[in-house]
Amino acid sequence: MLQDNHTINAAGHFCVGGVDAVTLAQTYGTPLYVMDEAVLRAKMRVCADAMTKYLPAGGMPLFASKALCCKEMYRIAGSEGLGADVVSGGELYTALAAGFPAEKLCFHGSAKTMDELRFAVSAGVGLIAVDNDEELQNLSRAAGEAGRTQRVLLRVTPGIDPHTFAAVNTGMVDSKFGVAIETGQAMEFTRAALETPHIALAGFHCHIGSQIAESKPFTDAADIMTAFMDEVRTECGYTAGILNLGGGLAVPYVAGDPDPDYDALIREVAEHLTARCAALHYPAPYVLMEPGRGIVGAAGVTLYTVQSVKTITGYKSYIAIDGGMTDDPRYALYGSQYTVLIADRAGEPKDFTADVAGRCCESGDLIGENMPIQTPRAGDTLAVLVTGAYNYSMASNYNRVPRPPIVMLRDGVPRVVVRRETYEDLVAWPGGCTRFTARSDAFSEKIFDFFGFSS
Amino acid sequence: MLQDNHTINAAGHFCVGGVDAVTLAQTYGTPLYVMDEAVLRAKMRVCADAMTKYLPAGGMPLFASKALCCKEMYRIAGSEGLGADVVSGGELYTALAAGFPAEKLCFHGSAKTMDELRFAVSAGVGLIAVDNDEELQNLSRAAGEAGRTQRVLLRVTPGIDPHTFAAVNTGMVDSKFGVAIETGQAMEFTRAALETPHIALAGFHCHIGSQIAESKPFTDAADIMTAFMDEVRTECGYTAGILNLGGGLAVPYVAGDPDPDYDALIREVAEHLTARCAALHYPAPYVLMEPGRGIVGAAGVTLYTVQSVKTITGYKSYIAIDGGMTDDPRYALYGSQYTVLIADRAGEPKDFTADVAGRCCESGDLIGENMPIQTPRAGDTLAVLVTGAYNYSMASNYNRVPRPPIVMLRDGVPRVVVRRETYEDLVAWPGGCTRFTARSDAFSEKIFDFFGFSS
Repeated sequence: MLQDNHTINAAGHFCVGGVDAVTLAQTYGTPLYVMDEAVLRAKMRVCADAMTKYLPAGGMPLFASKALCCKEMYRIAGSEGLGADVVSGGELYTALAAGFPAEKLCFHGSAKTMDELRFAVSAGVGLIAVDNDEELQNLSRAAGEAGRTQRVLLRVTPGIDPHTFAAVNTGMVDSKFGVAIETGQAMEFTRAALETPHIALAGFHCHIGSQIAESKPFTDAADIMTAFMDEVRTECGYTAGILNLGGGLAVPYVAGDPDPDYDALIREVAEHLTARCAALHYPAPYVLMEPGRGIVGAAGVTLYTVQSVKTITGYKSYIAIDGGMTDDPRYALYGSQYTVLIADRAGEPKDFTADVAGRCCESGDLIGENMPIQTPRAGDTLAVLVTGAYNYSMASNYNRVPRPPIVMLRDGVPRVVVRRETYEDLVAWPGGCTRFTARSDAFSEKIFDFFGFSS
Repeated sequence: MLQDNHTINAAGHFCVGGVDAVTLAQTYGTPLYVMDEAVLRAKMRVCADAMTKYLPAGGMPLFASKALCCKEMYRIAGSEGLGADVVSGGELYTALAAGFPAEKLCFHGSAKTMDELRFAVSAGVGLIAVDNDEELQNLSRAAGEAGRTQRVLLRVTPGIDPHTFAAVNTGMVDSKFGVAIETGQAMEFTRAALETPHIALAGFHCHIGSQIAESKPFTDAADIMTAFMDEVRTECGYTAGILNLGGGLAVPYVAGDPDPDYDALIREVAEHLTARCAALHYPAPYVLMEPGRGIVGAAGVTLYTVQSVKTITGYKSYIAIDGGMTDDPRYALYGSQYTVLIADRAGEPKDFTADVAGRCCESGDLIGENMPIQTPRAGDTLAVLVTGAYNYSMASNYNRVPRPPIVMLRDGVPRVVVRRETYEDLVAWPGGCTRFTARSDAFSEKIFDFFGFSS
């Protein structure tokens, strides 16, 4: 089994957090997102504890909302003492609606609108990671209007390629995010921030990418960031109190994927950073990290019902499921790998190979190709593992498919924390439509009669 | 200009259907989907007229809902006498909610659920395109329960590669859709359908792919389909009344893209098919085609506001906009090409080159790379052309970004046909969340104080 909370019960059924997945599928319907709260909380605690233990000036994980944004996630993160990062007015609104303390939010994003900056300032967001000069001026204006001084981090790009997928690399010089150290623009940006009214510079932020399984990319980033901070101290007389090293902790999706020990990884980063600061005689900063996938990824499983199994003689087999790219676009977007199983017979050998195909009218709607799995039958519950991150949050209504609910498990008890979308929602949401211009001419009547077979 | 309805007014502003795009952006906010009803209706008429004119037994275009599904689209398609194809219970529900006649609907999809089949049968859907054996049996059961006989098409795969993008090829032998002719499985499928109770076989359906700019792939498909139909007649004594040749009409996205004359293309297909049937002494079938993109693609434009322009010295430039992959995931999914312009200065030369970057915290959130455009300034309205298809329909709330409204233009008058999603919608939609387990321990208080700076 890929995760410790994945087990098989006496009936041979796959269980998540001790709860029978086939029963969950029957009770709540499919597709169904299932989250194991124990896993979520364990991941939050290992990150929070490690940052407290190993960082001399302390630190805090900020849950990266974009990985899974719903009110319950903020409640859980809040109850574990974590902060959160938000990247839009919508995430900020959701956090506040859940009662999350604004002071523990860090607002990110490369294209914040003026309305969002005003919203963040008036809500009392603790930190805003400013992406660029334009935004710095807009934020200064928003803070001035509100009669406030806003604490900010500056997003800089350290110029690191963590060797993960291109679409999720964010720390390279030519990134759309932040301002590059290498080109000298980050130094100018810092000077500007120090001189801009209503702005209180609190430190710096970088984010180098996703699915990072070892400390090296983070320690490289720490080297570059501390060198930059040292240079800023020399040139501008400013010492940063906060260093935000971003997110990117890897989770394993298939057997053999690295499964990093977050405690060890954070310890290595902390020790490296501490030594580096000591060598530079730089005061140890308060450190923020932003695990998203690392918190929620492994806690999630998606359950589908097998609609049909199609074997094209001499070619391949397809398992058609009742969801797909609408609830999980990661294979379509990135070719992401997953582990699948038939929950009804999870203990049997994976003696079948198939493409798991989603329900959309699109050939690219796949969960994966050539996936080993138990021999499937129509009506079976098919489980896709490690779907807690970037599934619900990226879900769409493509082909007008309602989005699935999220069922959270705590101590073996399931509860719905996001309800299933309905057809009524789909039609109600777009709101007002106008008059129907009837144009009942001979042409349309004729084909209507034919196609309707006059029956 | 890419389309005839794209013009530049005296102020130098870009106009859609004669309406100033900058004014639209200011009036309705951005991001904003703009649709020109005149273009929609013109495309519908050219297809409907061509099918009526050139097909001896008649024919009808079915608007492919998946390209743009909202109530107003069904009202417009209905008023033009078109049918529609739907691929899910959600699309069916939307069509019915708009008052579209069920008899003119064809229900597609490779993984229809039992609930959807019951819904379609009870709604009186004119045709159901049955994908596979499993579904045939389920449909027979659903129709039997309802005391009805359901008219069906069988989806078969002709084994054609129309040489377009892999993710949108659907007619090859190893497709997830339908049943292959080549392997003999389509003949067995036909036999089964003819013998299955509560099923009335009306004909066959194939769909070979997207962005097809010439008649050849369609006439190839027609050759294979008629040969198959002839074989079915010989082996089973069944003559098909309907041939559905699917969709896939190309639209031009950038200068130099083929811009097929749909009338000429349909005429070529019709004449080829007619000759082919005559040669086989096969009665000319009633023909269905399923343009989706071909109807709505060119009618749409998306308007954004430029948030910032970032030039990374010695590398590249980014234009940050207030939308992106959330309202248009096509570049992220397929690397699709687009034409962009600054609506405020549409008559000026495109002397700037930049990546147009969306607002999501994801490097892959781009509208395009190295795009020629007028020199942009923050606050400008940026237009992306030909976004009528697969933009609204594939939109998500990733990063909790509300989906834009659709404004439809008729005779220079804009009206909102889909309203803008709100933050309240985002939080209200997921519905019930449970108690907040407060855990206010020393650990969380400590970091709260630090991060909040006790201010």
